[in-house]
Amino acid sequence: MKIITLLSDFGGRDSYVAQMKGVACSLSDARLVDITHEIPAHNIRQGAFHLWMAAGWFPKGTVHVAVVDPGVGTTRRGLFVVGKNYVFVGPDNGVLLPACHAEEPFTVYEITHPGFQLAHAGQTFDGRDLFAPVAAYITMGVPFETLGRPTTSFVDLQFPIAQRTEDVVSGAVLYIDRFGNLITNIRAPLLPRLEGRLRVTIGGHEEFLPVVRSYGFALEGEPLAMVGSSGFLEIAVNKGNAASRFQATEDASVAVRVV
Amino acid sequence: MKIITLLSDFGGRDSYVAQMKGVACSLSDARLVDITHEIPAHNIRQGAFHLWMAAGWFPKGTVHVAVVDPGVGTTRRGLFVVGKNYVFVGPDNGVLLPACHAEEPFTVYEITHPGFQLAHAGQTFDGRDLFAPVAAYITMGVPFETLGRPTTSFVDLQFPIAQRTEDVVSGAVLYIDRFGNLITNIRAPLLPRLEGRLRVTIGGHEEFLPVVRSYGFALEGEPLAMVGSSGFLEIAVNKGNAASRFQATEDASVAVRVV
Amino acid sequence: MKIITLLSDFGGRDSYVAQMKGVACSLSDARLVDITHEIPAHNIRQGAFHLWMAAGWFPKGTVHVAVVDPGVGTTRRGLFVVGKNYVFVGPDNGVLLPACHAEEPFTVYEITHPGFQLAHAGQTFDGRDLFAPVAAYITMGVPFETLGRPTTSFVDLQFPIAQRTEDVVSGAVLYIDRFGNLITNIRAPLLPRLEGRLRVTIGGHEEFLPVVRSYGFALEGEPLAMVGSSGFLEIAVNKGNAASRFQATEDASVAVRVV
Repeated sequence: MKIITLLSDFGGRDSYVAQMKGVACSLSDARLVDITHEIPAHNIRQGAFHLWMAAGWFPKGTVHVAVVDPGVGTTRRGLFVVGKNYVFVGPDNGVLLPACHAEEPFTVYEITHPGFQLAHAGQTFDGRDLFAPVAAYITMGVPFETLGRPTTSFVDLQFPIAQRTEDVVSGAVLYIDRFGNLITNIRAPLLPRLEGRLRVTIGGHEEFLPVVRSYGFALEGEPLAMVGSSGFLEIAVNKGNAASRFQATEDASVAVRVV
Repeated sequence: MKIITLLSDFGGRDSYVAQMKGVACSLSDARLVDITHEIPAHNIRQGAFHLWMAAGWFPKGTVHVAVVDPGVGTTRRGLFVVGKNYVFVGPDNGVLLPACHAEEPFTVYEITHPGFQLAHAGQTFDGRDLFAPVAAYITMGVPFETLGRPTTSFVDLQFPIAQRTEDVVSGAVLYIDRFGNLITNIRAPLLPRLEGRLRVTIGGHEEFLPVVRSYGFALEGEPLAMVGSSGFLEIAVNKGNAASRFQATEDASVAVRVV
Repeated sequence: MKIITLLSDFGGRDSYVAQMKGVACSLSDARLVDITHEIPAHNIRQGAFHLWMAAGWFPKGTVHVAVVDPGVGTTRRGLFVVGKNYVFVGPDNGVLLPACHAEEPFTVYEITHPGFQLAHAGQTFDGRDLFAPVAAYITMGVPFETLGRPTTSFVDLQFPIAQRTEDVVSGAVLYIDRFGNLITNIRAPLLPRLEGRLRVTIGGHEEFLPVVRSYGFALEGEPLAMVGSSGFLEIAVNKGNAASRFQATEDASVAVRVV
């Protein structure tokens, strides 16, 4: 059974998400699964992060729609991107790209299909009027060439990649989750060891953090380092909030001394 | 495949919505799609607005259940309303009516079927005990006459309709969305033109607003007028909040000078 | 059609719930229904309460997954519990147990199946890596013995049971819902009568509360007692907030004088 996932910054208060679902249900029997609709308004970076984190857990053939779209109605184009396992549909502003890079090689199509428009309505809701129909048509087997044309130009977005020098692994905070955990871009294999204590600098603060297998192995209120559920180094506080503890924001630099 | 949509003021913290879904799943294989459950508690007007905005995007035959129901357990009746394309199920307090008026001619039925009640439970959750079962039975093809009897009396609710005189189009704010956009009841064809600047008075403030095709065509922080995704005139601020900018509340008057 | 329900403290901002759903969809065609993901972080008691309230409304054969799991990655075990009508899957910390006690006799299994783990990832997301796969396998008919082994030791959690002496029914607040209604553990049959006024003490405050069939039968702003939608005595304020009115917190004592 085909699946369409939906991610947006529409929130749960309004009916915008439901309007997209109504359109998708009208055109396709695909299952609809929400990724999240609580992306902060217009925050392309955070939308891109969550799409990237979630996409790969869905079955091959899933169509992922992401609508964080401050430029809707302007000349920014609509895209769909065909990767190894998935198709991604959304605006040409980078929100799809980190997830696409995990699916290389991928082909980017500019949407040329008109979708559909409410008579007398504006052009401010491509999520409903363009991306949901295109996603639905893809699940129904409409050929890619009917819906768009390949393009080599698109707005790229890539998260910073952590670097290792002789003495230090330098990275950044990618995301702060609801628990205040700091998810960095430092993957486990980059670290010299995953035991004992790590000498970690976040923003200006340097601390020696115990490396644990999970939150519950640290004392309550104690900061810790661990490999999180996506394979990245996380800085957390057991039953506490690491973002407050380290006064860290997204994109804050993180350095781990190797020696 | 049949669809049941659900709208309520139950929020996402409690399990009330899930209890309704459990009942619906127990009686019917219909797909369940949420419209929203974040209607402010007891706010019939806002529930009615969102049901009206979302209903028409779903496939013909969809059953829409709306539970914003401060009078639950009193003598207020339960209704289902059969319109051209949809059936609406909920309390007789007006919440269904704006969506029904978009589906005229419609027939209103008073629910006479007992639904079901938990032994020893109160009568405070008709969403689960009455409306969800009735919606499920409708998707299973149970005849309307088995579930209720036609009635001509019901609590009506209609949103104000914008008026045009020689000099001015007079309307009101129907809704303020999460982005602070003011959605008015002024439909595009009522306006003399959709270009240049419109002379708009909201509450006491008069301003000349540029008419744009979409948010992104205005400068950041600049107020603008545009035809929104439902065909209504919207007052917005590109990457800003129009409700704060104009100190506007729902139901605030909006006037557009025609000359 | 098989159903998997999901309850967690993951919230709607992150993609953790979607990652679980992606895994479940990859292994099973079961319908996915959310109970709630807005359990306060690490609040096992509130997760247990909502699972208990919602589980019984789903069709026989439903698999309920609950992930409120502050001890994830430690030596706490993963369980599935086979009751009369349902299977429950989650951590061994009590979150499943109140719902299980409503399904006696039940058999507790320790999960021995490895689920699956992302290479290089930590062990901090058993919801996705262990509980979602096990729930999916159960809906696919994988035998319980393949997934775990019966155990008689587990962390139990039972909510206090109200007691009646000659003069007084003594209970507690189980939960405060979004409307501020106080849901107690006092079931209707324990009360001498359900009419007139009840002499109720909450915390230190004693009041004579009218017993009504529903909120709408009390005056606006008036406190009231009624049998709520789960069969428990509720203390509410019509269109108001009983928790504020009585300065009550969860677990606050409630006494009803019988004479």
